[in-house]
Amino acid sequence: MQADEQARPVEHYRAVEKYLHEHIPMSAAMGVRVKSATLQRVHLAAPLAPNANHHETVFGGSAVAVATLAAWTLVHLRLDRAGADAQLVIQRSTMEYKKPMAGDFEAICEFDDRVAWQRFKTTLDRRGRARLTVKALLLRGEHEAGAFEGDFVALRSV
Amino acid sequence: MQADEQARPVEHYRAVEKYLHEHIPMSAAMGVRVKSATLQRVHLAAPLAPNANHHETVFGGSAVAVATLAAWTLVHLRLDRAGADAQLVIQRSTMEYKKPMAGDFEAICEFDDRVAWQRFKTTLDRRGRARLTVKALLLRGEHEAGAFEGDFVALRSV
Repeated sequence: MQADEQARPVEHYRAVEKYLHEHIPMSAAMGVRVKSATLQRVHLAAPLAPNANHHETVFGGSAVAVATLAAWTLVHLRLDRAGADAQLVIQRSTMEYKKPMAGDFEAICEFDDRVAWQRFKTTLDRRGRARLTVKALLLRGEHEAGAFEGDFVALRSV
Repeated sequence: MQADEQARPVEHYRAVEKYLHEHIPMSAAMGVRVKSATLQRVHLAAPLAPNANHHETVFGGSAVAVATLAAWTLVHLRLDRAGADAQLVIQRSTMEYKKPMAGDFEAICEFDDRVAWQRFKTTLDRRGRARLTVKALLLRGEHEAGAFEGDFVALRSV
């Protein structure tokens, strides 16, 4: 990503939310809202009700899905901003569930590793395929409830 | 689990599906159907449409959620059959995405490790807390599309 790419504002978070709800219907079914979306940080929120389990805490499958969505969205926004015509897929993920979440919850993906991003972009340009590891946290209120790590692969469109 | 517990038939898979849809609303939103559910094998199916991404393949978050559900259901059925009054939570999971799934998909959790189950049950009885690792596969048609592994923790109700 070039310096001028970093400087330009990302598309409005409402547009990101609309994109997710239209293209990934599970994001709407989970009631995901985009609280903010920049190239360094994607912040999602989701209500308990559609994501509850039989204990009235968040179903693990919903938790990992929202974390996956936060991480995917950040890499997607960065690829889009960089003008990369690439398909983005997830290759592997790990999720640590630290605390049950007995209410609405949030997922935050932060990424500001310019070296890793540049290597990712260079590899994608040269080889048509590159991998990037991104982390996200799950939060219930101010408490960390889970930690996600995903390997995403970008494949240049043919 | 005692021999007689293994011999008794598990509750009908339609009842398991009804239980999931009622208590974990995401299972209904994902269109999950229970194709079979025994103490050795839980087989779930889900349609593409509610689980699609922008490439018209299955969203990774849906894939890992359905795999989580298959594994959770198997351990839940086993604890229920064993008469254990315990809360079951997921502690950690890993998901390897091997192939994109461009259509309806399935998740199969198989578990037949009597030694591990006995150890799990004994530890739960003695200490009120025990952990079990369970695997599940994602299938698109006859092809393996992903591999899930989850650590589940049972906590005796107090």
